[in-house]
Amino acid sequence: MPFVRIDLPDTVSPEDAQALGDAVHQALVASFEVPPDDRFQVLARHAPGALVCTSAYLGVRHSARVALVQITCSFGRTLAHKRALYAGIAHNAAQAGFAAADVIVHLVETARENWSFGEGVAHYAPAAS
Amino acid sequence: MPFVRIDLPDTVSPEDAQALGDAVHQALVASFEVPPDDRFQVLARHAPGALVCTSAYLGVRHSARVALVQITCSFGRTLAHKRALYAGIAHNAAQAGFAAADVIVHLVETARENWSFGEGVAHYAPAAS
Amino acid sequence: MPFVRIDLPDTVSPEDAQALGDAVHQALVASFEVPPDDRFQVLARHAPGALVCTSAYLGVRHSARVALVQITCSFGRTLAHKRALYAGIAHNAAQAGFAAADVIVHLVETARENWSFGEGVAHYAPAAS
Repeated sequence: MPFVRIDLPDTVSPEDAQALGDAVHQALVASFEVPPDDRFQVLARHAPGALVCTSAYLGVRHSARVALVQITCSFGRTLAHKRALYAGIAHNAAQAGFAAADVIVHLVETARENWSFGEGVAHYAPAAS
Repeated sequence: MPFVRIDLPDTVSPEDAQALGDAVHQALVASFEVPPDDRFQVLARHAPGALVCTSAYLGVRHSARVALVQITCSFGRTLAHKRALYAGIAHNAAQAGFAAADVIVHLVETARENWSFGEGVAHYAPAAS
Repeated sequence: MPFVRIDLPDTVSPEDAQALGDAVHQALVASFEVPPDDRFQVLARHAPGALVCTSAYLGVRHSARVALVQITCSFGRTLAHKRALYAGIAHNAAQAGFAAADVIVHLVETARENWSFGEGVAHYAPAAS
């Protein structure tokens, strides 16, 4: 798993939100070795005013089509992996019609034993001793 | 605290979403020693397409009634506690009308000093010296 | 960055939700040394029943105007900083028309290399060697 939550304004169409979800997933597959069928995403579109974003921070300017991407994933990726992920998301998002400056990403890392993919099982934890 | 966020499709009724919230809370009380009155949940129902879930991962197949459950809680539970929580959620959810395969759970753990339950106080932190 | 997500009932007006967002941001600037232009927030208002909150926990009683505030931020703040943040949010929120008891806060801390503010760059990570 990663679990991906993308918040964006509802001026972005559902189709474009889907395309951004695809962009993020493909970057996770390419850079974080996420299996293609390990996809769990929430694409939440918000009314004007509900998404508050600075017009610019650290020299990056944001438009009204900004997307806030939170990726919860397991610990273990190196800084090089993370750099590749950010670059891959920006690249793919640009191809999907989003400005690279409008895709803001952060990772929340958690333990591998913290995931259950259904059936009440801790799929990534070592077998009980 | 734990803080529980459940994302599900809006084809699930508000009543069923509430029942799943109950199922998760009861499992937290039983397995994580959460006090019964320590309940803070967001039950977010989403339009078709806004919740993207693989049809199957690790051999677990998901229906259109899949629920993504994120539990933010304090550090300190053992793997045994976590296994019991996942199993308890699956058991309770099945009694509430959800397939155990459709309840996907992950934990985000945080420090005890990171909680304030109102009034501007760090309730779980040791007294200031 | 911090990334701030505030969930509240839709009986709270969009204007009041914005005022609470301001209250939280100003406390982050004052207590966590967050730059004023480092603001990224989602203010999500929910239908009745979608936000489930205990009526009281640890002696703090909550009304129907409760707000659940999740702040994802980098590691590194001391307990004193966190106490100041909680107190500042409660103070500012009260001035914005929210009972201090109704503002429930938790922090999720993450590594500095886990942030990208757009353009596919890890802004807070040391330069690649």
